[in-house]
Amino acid sequence: MAQPLRIALAGIGTVGAGVIRLLEANGDLIARRAGRRIEVAAVSARDRSKDRGIAMDRYAWEDDMGAFATREGIDVVVELVGGADGPALTLARNAIAHGKSLVTANKAMIAHHGLALAEAAEANRVALKFEAAVAGGIPVIKGLREGAAANAIERVYGILNGTCNYILSTMEDTGRDFAEVLAEAQAKGFAEADPSFDIDGIDAAHKLAILASIAFGTRIDFAPVAATGIRRIIAADIAQADALGYYIRLLGIAEVTRDDNGAHCLFQRVHPYLVPRDHPLAHVDGATNAVVAEGNFSGRLLFQGAGAGDGPTASAVVADLIDIARHTGDGNEIGAPFSIPVAELENMRPASAERRVGKAYIRMIVADRPGVLAEIAAAMRDGGVSIESLIQKASAPSPADGDETVLVALVTHEGPEGNVNAALRLLEGSPSLIEPPLVMHILGD
Amino acid sequence: MAQPLRIALAGIGTVGAGVIRLLEANGDLIARRAGRRIEVAAVSARDRSKDRGIAMDRYAWEDDMGAFATREGIDVVVELVGGADGPALTLARNAIAHGKSLVTANKAMIAHHGLALAEAAEANRVALKFEAAVAGGIPVIKGLREGAAANAIERVYGILNGTCNYILSTMEDTGRDFAEVLAEAQAKGFAEADPSFDIDGIDAAHKLAILASIAFGTRIDFAPVAATGIRRIIAADIAQADALGYYIRLLGIAEVTRDDNGAHCLFQRVHPYLVPRDHPLAHVDGATNAVVAEGNFSGRLLFQGAGAGDGPTASAVVADLIDIARHTGDGNEIGAPFSIPVAELENMRPASAERRVGKAYIRMIVADRPGVLAEIAAAMRDGGVSIESLIQKASAPSPADGDETVLVALVTHEGPEGNVNAALRLLEGSPSLIEPPLVMHILGD
Repeated sequence: MAQPLRIALAGIGTVGAGVIRLLEANGDLIARRAGRRIEVAAVSARDRSKDRGIAMDRYAWEDDMGAFATREGIDVVVELVGGADGPALTLARNAIAHGKSLVTANKAMIAHHGLALAEAAEANRVALKFEAAVAGGIPVIKGLREGAAANAIERVYGILNGTCNYILSTMEDTGRDFAEVLAEAQAKGFAEADPSFDIDGIDAAHKLAILASIAFGTRIDFAPVAATGIRRIIAADIAQADALGYYIRLLGIAEVTRDDNGAHCLFQRVHPYLVPRDHPLAHVDGATNAVVAEGNFSGRLLFQGAGAGDGPTASAVVADLIDIARHTGDGNEIGAPFSIPVAELENMRPASAERRVGKAYIRMIVADRPGVLAEIAAAMRDGGVSIESLIQKASAPSPADGDETVLVALVTHEGPEGNVNAALRLLEGSPSLIEPPLVMHILGD
Repeated sequence: MAQPLRIALAGIGTVGAGVIRLLEANGDLIARRAGRRIEVAAVSARDRSKDRGIAMDRYAWEDDMGAFATREGIDVVVELVGGADGPALTLARNAIAHGKSLVTANKAMIAHHGLALAEAAEANRVALKFEAAVAGGIPVIKGLREGAAANAIERVYGILNGTCNYILSTMEDTGRDFAEVLAEAQAKGFAEADPSFDIDGIDAAHKLAILASIAFGTRIDFAPVAATGIRRIIAADIAQADALGYYIRLLGIAEVTRDDNGAHCLFQRVHPYLVPRDHPLAHVDGATNAVVAEGNFSGRLLFQGAGAGDGPTASAVVADLIDIARHTGDGNEIGAPFSIPVAELENMRPASAERRVGKAYIRMIVADRPGVLAEIAAAMRDGGVSIESLIQKASAPSPADGDETVLVALVTHEGPEGNVNAALRLLEGSPSLIEPPLVMHILGD
C-alpha cells in the first residue's frame, strides 16, 4: 500500500472530534477504498485539556495551528476552526502557499474568500475541498461538480439550513408560534444562543453562493444574495399555507436569468417559500437538508440528508480526504475547486427580482375598521397585482396598544414581483397596517 | 488545453443518440469543466441508415464495433449496445485488454461480469465506469463510491425501476388495476412490449447487486437476489395499504446481516414493500428513481432523480467521461471500479430472509363460507404469527368459476419472516384459498 495521507487537524470541536472518531472507527475500510491510510499526523485546538471523549494523547499536539502551514510531514491541513477571516483564513492561505492541500468545512470563509483560495490552490497544484461547507453530510458539491458535470444547470435550490427547517416543520406539526419553537430548539441544542446567523438566512446564503458558483461556473458573489429569514412567520401563516396546499420552507434559490439587454445575470435569494405539497422539498422535515439541481439533460436531481451534526459533517470532510488520497499525483488532478478554473469563471451581474414572475402569499395584520380591505384591494389593483384568493380572519395576534386587528392573507395570480413591491409601496405608512406586510413567494416549476 | 479525450460510441439507440446530442449541446461547458474536450472519434451501430435526428455524417462510422478495441486514436470505448453477454461483453473485454477505458450503461453485463471486467481494468490500469447502469441520471454510484466513502454503509435500498414506480403510483392515483395501467404504460412507451424484465424485478435486481457491491465492499452476487415483481398487486391492495398509512413501492434492499454463527452475510431482495407515509421514498412518484444509503457517520442519504430516458442516462454516461478526462494520468488514478480492488472484495454468503424481523401485509382471496377466517387465524397462530389488524371485504375480484369470494387483508405484528412462511405453508393446498396469498413486507427503520 502507498504512503499514508498525512493530515493536520486544526480545530477539535464537535466536527474535529467527529473526524477523529470516524477515522478511528472506519480507518481500515477507508484504507481499502482510498488505497492508503489517512493518518492524523498532528492536531491543534485552543484548549488542550478539554475532554473530547477521545484519547487525545495518541495524536501529536501542536500549540500553534499556524505552524501546520510549514510543518514537515503534512500533506493536507484540515481547517475546522471556523470564521470567515482571522486565524482560519491565515492558516488556509499559508497552507496552500506552502504546497499543502486544504480541506475545510468553513462556509463563511469559502463564501467570502473561496475564489482567492482556489486561485492559489490552482497555482500551487494542491487540492482545495469543502464538501462539508454545504449541506453537512450530503455529497452535493460532488454531486454538482462531478455527478451533474455533463449538464448546463438551469437552477439550483434547496433547504440549506437545518435549524430553520426544524423550526418550520415543528411549527407545522404543533401549531405553535415561532418564538416558542425557537426557545425549545435552543434548549435542545438545535439552535444557537444567538440564532441570528441561522434564522436570518445568512448561513443559507453562504451555502447558496458556493452552490451557485459550482452549478453555473460563475464567480462566487455573496454580497448581493438577498436573505430573508423566518422570524416573522407566525402560526397563522403556516395554517393558511397548509389550507392552500403548501408547506413553508426556507429555501436558497439560484438561477441564471437574463436582464433587459439579454445579458446573463445571476439571481440568488434566501427566502421562506411556499412549497407545493407535491414537490419533493415539501416533505423534508426536521433538521434535514435537501438540494435540487435542474440540469438540461439530467432533469431534476435531488440530494437529501443530514445538514449538520458531528457525524455527517465528519463524513463529508473525510470524503474529501479520500478523494485526495485516491489521487496519487498532485492535488490538481482532481480538477479545479470550483469545477472550472477561477480565471475562467464568469463574472455575472446580480439579477433584480423585480421581473421574476410567480405567485406570492402576502399576509397583513390590519386595523379592524371599515374601508381597510378596500384600501388593500385598491393598492393591489394600482400596483398591477391580481388576487387569486383572499382570507380575512379575526384571530390576529393582539397588538401592544390593544386595538382590534384582523389578519388578511392573500395569494396573487402569477405576475412580476415588481408589481407586488409597487402595491406594497402604496400601502407604506398607511395607518391601517399594524405592522409591515409579510411577503412569501410561491415556489414555481 | 490538453489533448481531447477521444471516445468511440458503440450503439446509437436512444441513449447513444442522447450522448451525441449532449456533447454537441454542452461541449464547450464540458471542456471547461474537464480541462479538455470530449471528442467522438468514431461511432458504430447495427443500422447505419436509421434516422437518429442527428447529423451522423459528422462522425467517423465503423461497421464493426468490435474493431474499436484495437482502433488507434481511441481512449475510451462507450458501450451502449446492451445485453449481459454477446457482442457487448466481447467488446468490453477486448477494449480493456487493449488498454482502453470502458464506460457502459449496461446493468446486466455489470451485474453478471462486472468483477471480471473490473479485474481486467485494474490489471490494465484503465478506467471502468458504469454510473448510467444504476438509476439513470442520478449520480448514485459516485454518491456511494466517493460521496459516502468515509462510511461503513449499513443498508442501501431504493426505487430502482421507473416502470414499476410509474405503474404503482398511477394505480394509487387512479384506483385502477395493474393490467389496465400496464397496458396504458406500454401504449405510452413507458413499458416494454415484453415487460417482464421490469415488472418481475429483474432489472431492479441487476442494479441492486451492483449497488450492494459498492456499498459493502462485497463481490457482486446477482444469482441469490430474490426478486418478486408487482404483477399480483391489485387495486384493493393499494387501497388497503393507503388505509393503513402506507404506499406500495417496489424496492431493492441490500443489507449486511449475521448468520447463526455470527458470520457476515449479504441480504439482497427486490420486493414490493409497504412504505410508511412519512418515509421519503413514499413520495417518489412516476418514473422517478431514488436510492437511500445509511452510513454509520453520514446517517441517511437520499439520491433522487430520473431513472431512465435518453437525457438522464446520457448525463450519467458523460459524467463518467468527464471523470476520466479530468485525470490526466492513467485510468487507475480514479480508483477501483467497485471502490475496493476486486481482489479485496469480500465473498459474503447470501443471507436467508427467514430470520428477518418485521411486519408483513398478507392478502388472500378466499371462498366466502363459514370457517375460513378461523382456518386462517389458526394457521397464523400455529406459525407463530401475531396479527395486528385484519380486514375482510366482500369486494374481491370474481374468480373464473363464479363462486362467491372475499378478500382478507391482514397486517402482522413484528416477527420473523420465517413464521409468516410457516403459517402460509399450513394454508398451502387449502381449498379455502382461491389463489396463493400475496405477502408484502413493511419497510422498517
